Amino acid sequence: MSAAPAATGRHRAPPGAEIMKRAEELAAITEEPGRLTRTFLTIEHRRAGETVIGWMRAAGMTAGFDAIGNVVGRYEGSSPGLPALLLGSHLDTVRDAGRYDGMLGVITAIACVGELNRQRTRPDFAIEVFGFGDEEGVRFQSTLLGSRAVAGRFEHALLDRRDAEGISLREALLRFGRAPERIGAAARRPEQALAYVELHIEQGPVLEAEGLPLGVVTSIAGASRYALTLTGEAGHAGTVPMGLRRDALAAAAEAVLLVERRCAESGGLVGTVGRIAAAPGAINVIPGRAELSLDIRAAEDEERRRAADDILRGIEAICRRRDVALEAVQTHDSAAAACAPWLMAQLDRAVAASGLAIRHLPSGAGHDAMAMAAIADIGMLFVRCRGGISHNPAESITEEDAELGAAALLDFIRGFTPAPPKVHP
Amino acid sequence: MSAAPAATGRHRAPPGAEIMKRAEELAAITEEPGRLTRTFLTIEHRRAGETVIGWMRAAGMTAGFDAIGNVVGRYEGSSPGLPALLLGSHLDTVRDAGRYDGMLGVITAIACVGELNRQRTRPDFAIEVFGFGDEEGVRFQSTLLGSRAVAGRFEHALLDRRDAEGISLREALLRFGRAPERIGAAARRPEQALAYVELHIEQGPVLEAEGLPLGVVTSIAGASRYALTLTGEAGHAGTVPMGLRRDALAAAAEAVLLVERRCAESGGLVGTVGRIAAAPGAINVIPGRAELSLDIRAAEDEERRRAADDILRGIEAICRRRDVALEAVQTHDSAAAACAPWLMAQLDRAVAASGLAIRHLPSGAGHDAMAMAAIADIGMLFVRCRGGISHNPAESITEEDAELGAAALLDFIRGFTPAPPKVHP
Repeated sequence: MSAAPAATGRHRAPPGAEIMKRAEELAAITEEPGRLTRTFLTIEHRRAGETVIGWMRAAGMTAGFDAIGNVVGRYEGSSPGLPALLLGSHLDTVRDAGRYDGMLGVITAIACVGELNRQRTRPDFAIEVFGFGDEEGVRFQSTLLGSRAVAGRFEHALLDRRDAEGISLREALLRFGRAPERIGAAARRPEQALAYVELHIEQGPVLEAEGLPLGVVTSIAGASRYALTLTGEAGHAGTVPMGLRRDALAAAAEAVLLVERRCAESGGLVGTVGRIAAAPGAINVIPGRAELSLDIRAAEDEERRRAADDILRGIEAICRRRDVALEAVQTHDSAAAACAPWLMAQLDRAVAASGLAIRHLPSGAGHDAMAMAAIADIGMLFVRCRGGISHNPAESITEEDAELGAAALLDFIRGFTPAPPKVHP
Repeated sequence: MSAAPAATGRHRAPPGAEIMKRAEELAAITEEPGRLTRTFLTIEHRRAGETVIGWMRAAGMTAGFDAIGNVVGRYEGSSPGLPALLLGSHLDTVRDAGRYDGMLGVITAIACVGELNRQRTRPDFAIEVFGFGDEEGVRFQSTLLGSRAVAGRFEHALLDRRDAEGISLREALLRFGRAPERIGAAARRPEQALAYVELHIEQGPVLEAEGLPLGVVTSIAGASRYALTLTGEAGHAGTVPMGLRRDALAAAAEAVLLVERRCAESGGLVGTVGRIAAAPGAINVIPGRAELSLDIRAAEDEERRRAADDILRGIEAICRRRDVALEAVQTHDSAAAACAPWLMAQLDRAVAASGLAIRHLPSGAGHDAMAMAAIADIGMLFVRCRGGISHNPAESITEEDAELGAAALLDFIRGFTPAPPKVHP
């Protein structure tokens, strides 16, 4: 099978209207009336998964929930049991979410398989489409639970994690009808996986700013996260002179501005303080304690580590000068995941086949592809979204862009040529 | 009756050990096990009030709850119904409070009256001791409810205020056994009130730094309070470049540092951001909204207003530069309350009678005396506290200082000479 030419490629695209309709259908399945929230192993997860399983079967796939609660559909190739091209994204959402982050990749992959099936095309490889059950990590405060299981990287200790209501992941799996001790069965072996390719909304403003509907991802940024606790001394807001204060929030304010300043030094770096709390938190009490979160990301691991070091050292200096104690706990550290050049080249070809300019860009957001990189080379195709907005009900894409994305993914699948097997020394 | 000489004055002091024991007894009456929290119109308020009423009666006073839930005790002078010297402080606390803020003033005043009673002394004026039910404003987010009622400054609209559980002040009064429509009966007329004098812990570090147990207050600082809401744009922490952000928390951080910087310009000024919140408050989301409290105080009203203007204008400029919207709502504005020179002179004399140096100092904290200034000249006597710490379980005074405070207050009462009536033009 070879890459389809541009003109006919466009004609074979799954219809954008169908993709938009399915995104809307999934968005209606929510835990919270009036806004979209769908977290891991809830009844809504189950209902959304069953809907997706129905679409998969209609597209000619065998489909069901796997051991961790991912939806998995398989479309056999020219003969049964061939190694598979893995496609997909996630079906869970943040609270008050948009309807495309994750879902678009699952819906589009199914639409592409449906098109192959409609044309009775069987490539020389199988296709598996994943609708991962947890990428956002909202319920158990641990991200990528679905794709980590498929990548064979699920740590058993995670089963003891509890959600806000005290329900453990183990209990939640049992109630969802899964056997926690069988999670290993969800894993794919590397020799079964030819590649993992994920279509996703950009969640950033780059493609929109350049007037491009699609982009090919070069790498997924690594991230360092810290929980910082600054301890000064609480005191009466009316009686302690400014010069005698050890105000933890004032120290935290300096830290926030240091993060901003240091990360502005390089275009490849972002840093965010998303959470802050001051204790005791009364209008008339000098804060004795401040807690803040710190999230630093970069496409280059070395740059990220340098920035994190600089920032932590800088915050230490701020605290020392103010006689405020600092506790910094690293809560997360993920290396950047590079997309495979051979997959980027095939994605480039598919984008060009749609008559579009090729734009390479890094992903600042994390994706299931990061976990899947443990067992397969990864590639990602970004679809433009309005205003770069995501994790927000205002998340928006156009039907035209949805169709262009589907056309490019279908072209990619039709033209997909597996990499030669890696030589292990 | 004339001022007692120093030597005999010391001998007549109510014992400090008794005062400390009563402070401990009241501290045991708390809403929260393991820490002292006693808010307005709770069952614990009632129990503490009943304990105090018992002490008042034992000291020869008639005593009971007034219409707003203050404890009031009256000790008649040489003939019944004379105008009264008003003494006292408050019996409510902040959350996780110390045991002296408020209570020390009530306990000490009762101890002084008890001493007069023991010696069968009846001055040429009555004495009324108040244990105000609400000074801190914790439950209904409005301070000085008790003393405002006594000063005839209770606004009827306050009855509709609700606590965190939705109980209105009106309901709470009814459940406490008070008739809300009769709050006016708690008010004292100016001609009945010769002066209001309050003994209180300093809540600041000045007396301790100078090695002095007592200080005479010159004025109570005025305060301006604001609720600030900064609205930028939320966004994904990994995908929005630093240069394209409208981070509300980064703007708030600049505001916090501006408050600190501006208020450090003058020794008479303090400014505090005690509360802060960032929304949506997720580790991986750029804050789209930040809310903060602002509290500015100064002994001089003009200086406070100038500082507040400068700070608000400065925060406006920060927000403009960052394309962040600012909403500033003034939530409180109280003028500085000057202590009456004639009362200060009589307090000076009482302090000197104990052989102590006279130290005048302003109060940065607010007190019931601020409200009482509406119907009477006010005076305040400060007792040294350890580390200037208050609103904190570490709040601490020595038994010796408690006794010195009681001796000075008793000398003051014995030597009290009312001011000549004011001539109204």
